[in-house]
Amino acid sequence: MIRIIMSGGNGHMGQVISGLVKDDPEAEIVAGIDLVDNRDNGYPVFTNINDCDVQADAMIDFSSAKATEAVLAYCTAKKLPLVLCTTGLSEEQLAQVAKASESTAVLRSANMSLGINTLLKLVQEAAKVLAGAGFDMEIVEKHHNQKVDAPSGTALALADSLNEAMDNQYHYVYDRSQTREKRDAKEIGLSAVRGGSIVGEHEVIFAGPDEVIEFKHTAYSKAVFGKGAVEAAKFLKGKGPGMYNMSNVING
Amino acid sequence: MIRIIMSGGNGHMGQVISGLVKDDPEAEIVAGIDLVDNRDNGYPVFTNINDCDVQADAMIDFSSAKATEAVLAYCTAKKLPLVLCTTGLSEEQLAQVAKASESTAVLRSANMSLGINTLLKLVQEAAKVLAGAGFDMEIVEKHHNQKVDAPSGTALALADSLNEAMDNQYHYVYDRSQTREKRDAKEIGLSAVRGGSIVGEHEVIFAGPDEVIEFKHTAYSKAVFGKGAVEAAKFLKGKGPGMYNMSNVING
Amino acid sequence: MIRIIMSGGNGHMGQVISGLVKDDPEAEIVAGIDLVDNRDNGYPVFTNINDCDVQADAMIDFSSAKATEAVLAYCTAKKLPLVLCTTGLSEEQLAQVAKASESTAVLRSANMSLGINTLLKLVQEAAKVLAGAGFDMEIVEKHHNQKVDAPSGTALALADSLNEAMDNQYHYVYDRSQTREKRDAKEIGLSAVRGGSIVGEHEVIFAGPDEVIEFKHTAYSKAVFGKGAVEAAKFLKGKGPGMYNMSNVING
Amino acid sequence: MIRIIMSGGNGHMGQVISGLVKDDPEAEIVAGIDLVDNRDNGYPVFTNINDCDVQADAMIDFSSAKATEAVLAYCTAKKLPLVLCTTGLSEEQLAQVAKASESTAVLRSANMSLGINTLLKLVQEAAKVLAGAGFDMEIVEKHHNQKVDAPSGTALALADSLNEAMDNQYHYVYDRSQTREKRDAKEIGLSAVRGGSIVGEHEVIFAGPDEVIEFKHTAYSKAVFGKGAVEAAKFLKGKGPGMYNMSNVING
Repeated sequence: MIRIIMSGGNGHMGQVISGLVKDDPEAEIVAGIDLVDNRDNGYPVFTNINDCDVQADAMIDFSSAKATEAVLAYCTAKKLPLVLCTTGLSEEQLAQVAKASESTAVLRSANMSLGINTLLKLVQEAAKVLAGAGFDMEIVEKHHNQKVDAPSGTALALADSLNEAMDNQYHYVYDRSQTREKRDAKEIGLSAVRGGSIVGEHEVIFAGPDEVIEFKHTAYSKAVFGKGAVEAAKFLKGKGPGMYNMSNVING
Repeated sequence: MIRIIMSGGNGHMGQVISGLVKDDPEAEIVAGIDLVDNRDNGYPVFTNINDCDVQADAMIDFSSAKATEAVLAYCTAKKLPLVLCTTGLSEEQLAQVAKASESTAVLRSANMSLGINTLLKLVQEAAKVLAGAGFDMEIVEKHHNQKVDAPSGTALALADSLNEAMDNQYHYVYDRSQTREKRDAKEIGLSAVRGGSIVGEHEVIFAGPDEVIEFKHTAYSKAVFGKGAVEAAKFLKGKGPGMYNMSNVING
Repeated sequence: MIRIIMSGGNGHMGQVISGLVKDDPEAEIVAGIDLVDNRDNGYPVFTNINDCDVQADAMIDFSSAKATEAVLAYCTAKKLPLVLCTTGLSEEQLAQVAKASESTAVLRSANMSLGINTLLKLVQEAAKVLAGAGFDMEIVEKHHNQKVDAPSGTALALADSLNEAMDNQYHYVYDRSQTREKRDAKEIGLSAVRGGSIVGEHEVIFAGPDEVIEFKHTAYSKAVFGKGAVEAAKFLKGKGPGMYNMSNVING
Repeated sequence: MIRIIMSGGNGHMGQVISGLVKDDPEAEIVAGIDLVDNRDNGYPVFTNINDCDVQADAMIDFSSAKATEAVLAYCTAKKLPLVLCTTGLSEEQLAQVAKASESTAVLRSANMSLGINTLLKLVQEAAKVLAGAGFDMEIVEKHHNQKVDAPSGTALALADSLNEAMDNQYHYVYDRSQTREKRDAKEIGLSAVRGGSIVGEHEVIFAGPDEVIEFKHTAYSKAVFGKGAVEAAKFLKGKGPGMYNMSNVING
């Protein structure tokens, strides 16, 4: 049994995780941290993180970059393992994260889903073989019509993963409509489709002579990200200081 | 049995069509027109169109825009039905095409495949229902890494087809990486993927609340375009003057 | 504004529809009917349909076949338009439905999603052109690992739709592993994939010489079925007696 | 430069490989073996393998199981590396293959494409992570309407690859239409779609809670199998006796 403090407990992902943990016999949320305490969660919610004196095995943070400093200070002081799911951190905050990992276990990931994290690894292996043999690499991602950034952070993480496998010799192309020229062999094209309520779909394409290989991930609900965070918390329990990522969770 | 004169007979599509017609008991190529007569085609090839005095029921033209004027003059004079597959015609040439159609049957199409032409019609019906109900429309096309234009002419034809169904209220978006804003309800996104030897794949996506409908066409070889041209020639045989298109062929 | 009585209001789909209607300025649930009244729905729930004396414009029924007789009797007596989403009705019950439609407007459908109902119509048009030209037709459906029937009712409805377009000359094939023979031109293959929590995916494939056209529908949540039911209720408001279906809703 | 003897040189794949090698500056076909010598190949074709005294670095065999014994005897005697692409070998013939590999280098593979062989390896890694985490595994393959066996040999090889990764605890299911029961967690479903001229498409699906990962391979022409065979021949040149497979080629 793992005891979790849920930072951002009353936000959308906090509620998703609360729902998931209710059905998980191996996990329990023992406290929440949020700006307001406006719901009946079945656990105490602290509006000031420093008031939280509940014993726990890990914290999951799905709040916002504004809370990161306080979250890191809390986990450092308590030597509490931290699953950090907040995105959009500044360089300064990333340095604070690294500093905190000297005192406690910290896992940070752009996408918490088991599937995406498995893909991040496998497309690297595929790139070494297929791009090495002259196959072209492209990424297409699809998200709902409310998403403001494009391409998605996960699409960029996939592109970085491909590029890293090829000694970072590739550049990224987001638009081909303004030029009339053949594709460069060292480019990775990224296309962003937006529409409806699509939760998130990512496709990595390797196109070669007379054959194409596609790796595609489809998320059906945001629960998939919550589930990954809970698995990460279970993994971090009892771990010593250091930076961890989802591939550590996947590889056990 | 239909007797075809193949203009551009020694080019890639001319040879593809020659191969197809050999296996078609209802069609026969009786003559070719091309700049050079450098192959054994089993039919005479004329390097000057005006030397061609072979009796025929239709001409298929897969040559180039440079030859269009002579092709139109020939078909007008002989009242020979013409399947015009050449792309990149100027405004002036389009006017000549219209003029020729007053004297003989002319069919012109951006994409000769039966599948694409069926899609062009069906996505219009889908748009009226689904875009009318608030679904977002997007197009993704994939082609080989030698193609210089993007998006493809067929993708643009599909977008125009969607837009026409919605009273031309939509605008086209080719790149979302340079802005941080939500998708406009009246936009059609067009994404172009390039890689390997992909012959041509077009996907029209209708994304609504909690459901997505996709219409996808995949061409496996250029023969599919040749086959459409032959079907068009069969359709035109005996037709009177006028402009025809592939939807006339499809609807018999 | 349409006033809806929700039969099966405390079931899963009843709650989904309650949630949808809360966000819909044109619709309102004025009463529920269910075996138990165990939730705070914001509207009265009657455990006996005959106690329900609330004025309404339509009823949506997502209860079970056991309740159908009472539902039909109620709507007949009140001349209340009925959206009947219950499946698994007996021949006798189907006759009762037909009888009720002589007194009031009744709409019944195997799948309430706008997308599937649009597809049911469009694949018929595609079949006439493409199967008419010798393309083969296949259906692949994917659902979660708890579904006991295969292929899905919607896949069968799609197959029937294709077959009807071709004068019912086709037969259905569910397994090709037990024979070693070429595909018959008059067969429609149906494949059922089961796994995870897939809500529902249906793909209709037209495969011809060198080209393939696919029509694919993906449901991301059951809300899509609820939304269709609400649209159907809006459509039925004020309609006279008769049997209606979702294609009437779609075509307005 | 590698010198290749093409066994089955006048068959479809033999001609495909002849065409590929013409454009490959690193390879050359120096002789063909076939039942008849009815074409102008630009190299001598021997109707009796034992008459072939041409110096070579490797043989590619795309003939038939009937010729396997003679092919193995020839390569054994000449210590000529052999790329064996013939399928449908008997147990006895497989023993002969193993015996031959004691004297010369032999590479045998069910599918010569680089893409499929990369997938065979990557889906194993995916299975360990994802099936290990409770994801369901399914395979869908699509081929042309002339193929008599189902599922394809490649689909079965993919299933075996998945099963092997999971300690062979899974069983295969080809038809779900005859039962009404939930999917077993230890089953791999295999679906076979047949239609048109589809060269070959294989999809491996991992379906978990709220997310799905798909690995898809599409072959656009049979050239892809020929290309793999030529790469295999290049790899085998100068190798000592032993059994090799395409993963050796891929990993260099």
